[in-house]
Order: sequence, then C-alpha cells, then structure tokens
Amino acid sequence: MRRGLVIVNTGNGKGKSTAAFGTLFRAWGRGFRVCVIQFIKAETGNWGEIRAARKLEIEWHTFGDGFTWLSKDIAKTAEKARHAWTFAQEKISSGKFDLIVLDEMTYAFHKNWIDINDVIAWLKTHKPPKLHVIITGRAAPPELIEYADLVTEMREIKHPYTRGIKAQPGIEF
Amino acid sequence: MRRGLVIVNTGNGKGKSTAAFGTLFRAWGRGFRVCVIQFIKAETGNWGEIRAARKLEIEWHTFGDGFTWLSKDIAKTAEKARHAWTFAQEKISSGKFDLIVLDEMTYAFHKNWIDINDVIAWLKTHKPPKLHVIITGRAAPPELIEYADLVTEMREIKHPYTRGIKAQPGIEF
Repeated sequence: MRRGLVIVNTGNGKGKSTAAFGTLFRAWGRGFRVCVIQFIKAETGNWGEIRAARKLEIEWHTFGDGFTWLSKDIAKTAEKARHAWTFAQEKISSGKFDLIVLDEMTYAFHKNWIDINDVIAWLKTHKPPKLHVIITGRAAPPELIEYADLVTEMREIKHPYTRGIKAQPGIEF
Repeated sequence: MRRGLVIVNTGNGKGKSTAAFGTLFRAWGRGFRVCVIQFIKAETGNWGEIRAARKLEIEWHTFGDGFTWLSKDIAKTAEKARHAWTFAQEKISSGKFDLIVLDEMTYAFHKNWIDINDVIAWLKTHKPPKLHVIITGRAAPPELIEYADLVTEMREIKHPYTRGIKAQPGIEF
C-alpha cells in the first residue's frame, strides 16, 4: 500500500531544492500528479526548473519576492509567506495531488512568519494519507525532523564560489 | 562565460542521484543537451526517472546489472562498469552535450574496476570546457573531491526503513 511520506531536505549545502525537483521528475515519470509551491522564489523568476515545469504543464507556484533576506519590506514578505501556506493548505487538502513540494519553507519558520507546531498539527489532521510532501530549506526545526519520515542533510563540502566561479545557469538555477 | 563544472554528490543519505536528476530537469528546462549514464542500474529497470526521460526523449543509458553487491558474476559486472566508462568517454568528448550525469560511478572506483587517477587525467585533457559533469555515489574518493568544483555530502538523518516503511514508487525509485 502506498504510504505518503513527509520528506525534509535540509542543511547548508546545495541540492535541497534540486533533489526535491529530482523526486518531482521521477514522480512525474510515473504519472503522479505533482505540484510545487515556492516560499522564497520571486514570481518574476524564469529559472531553469520553472521553464521545465511550464513545458510539462506541471503546477508551479511562486510566492516570494526573491531573496527575503534582502527584502526592504519585511511585513509584506511575511504576508507573502503566510499566503503561500494558506495556498498550500488548499492544495494539500484538495486530494488532487500525489506529491507536493513546499520549497524553502523553513525560512518562514525561522522568521516566525508561520508556526511550525501549527503546521504539523494541521498536516496530521488534513494531509491525505497517500500524499507525499517534501519540505526544503536550511536548518529544519527539530519539531519538523521529529514529524518527518525521511530527513536528509545536504552538507557543503566544496563550493565553486570559493574558487571564484560564478553560479552557472541550468545547473544552479 | 559558461564554465563547465565538475559536481560530486556523495554521502550515505538519499538524494545523490535524485539531486542530479533535479539538475537535469533544470538544465533541460533551459534547453541544455543532457545525457545520463548509469553504472549500477539494470538495463531492464523501469524506474520513474527512466520513464520521465523516455517521455522527454532524454538520452539515458543503463549499464549495470542491478545491485552489483548482489552480483553472482563479478567479472561480468566489472566488465559492464568499464564498458560504461568507455561509453561515457565517447559521450563526453563528442561535444554534443551540455550536461552529462555519471550516476553511481563511485562504486566502480571502490571496486577498482576503474582507476580514479586515470579518469581524472582523462577528464582534464578531454572534457570540453563548457560541459558540466555530475558524478554520484557513496564515499567519493579524495582525488575526485580534490578535482571537483562542487561537492555535496548527502547525510542520512532519518530514514523511513527504520520506521518499517517500504520504499515508495515515484519517490525513491
């Protein structure tokens, strides 16, 4: 029987969102109904993964205003994150999906824009049993790790920035 | 200017191959020419990622005979790995690709089926400067980490097996 997993990709290294998109690719290959909700990425972005999703008609929603730590209007950024979670709740409880990615959601916990205990309590009662959910972002809160079925830490061992190499399109974004 | 990165996804956790497939998804979204060569996965596999690749007409080659550590004929398994590397060399030097994934290649180094120093020396002289290469697998050799531009370790923090939950199609394969 299929058991919907709660998966967390965390840590300071690359590959947290990327592995979630790899799972999406795999799930899409099996005909799963998939959806991505991004808490940080700006609506105006035209990243490689968004272009791919558009080509494949995968549901992909961006709610951030770019890199929130550069935000000049924190109240507005916080409101966007809360709106993303309300939107995610609709998608999760709709029963229309097999896999939903909540990308870079952990930032909203750290900034106290969304309460982790409220999220877990809601998921326990509203997440359809067969639905897989992936949550990504640095420093996942202990409550989330406790609740999740599968947790991976992506650790940076070596980064090209330290060699003076800029981020590469198609690879890092 | 584009700089072809050598990327290594290693560690004992999930997400090494999956993050490589996520990068593939992103690169494909940008219209990159991509190719996957798998050193372990059996030719007969019908995994989610292979189904996705088939739908998208992405070049995807499997050279393994399943889980090599269960192999009954090690000489044949070793020969398959060496054949995969010869095949990869052709693809790498062809100039026809922007991104090539060498999936689960590190096993071949550990088993001494392929010499890591030979591989690095060959890549240094034959890899087109703009080509990105991703090598995945547990316990990447130090020589490979030294040579690579970007190295991430995927660490297992929590695994569903420990809760008695079986591997889930579309998520883990």
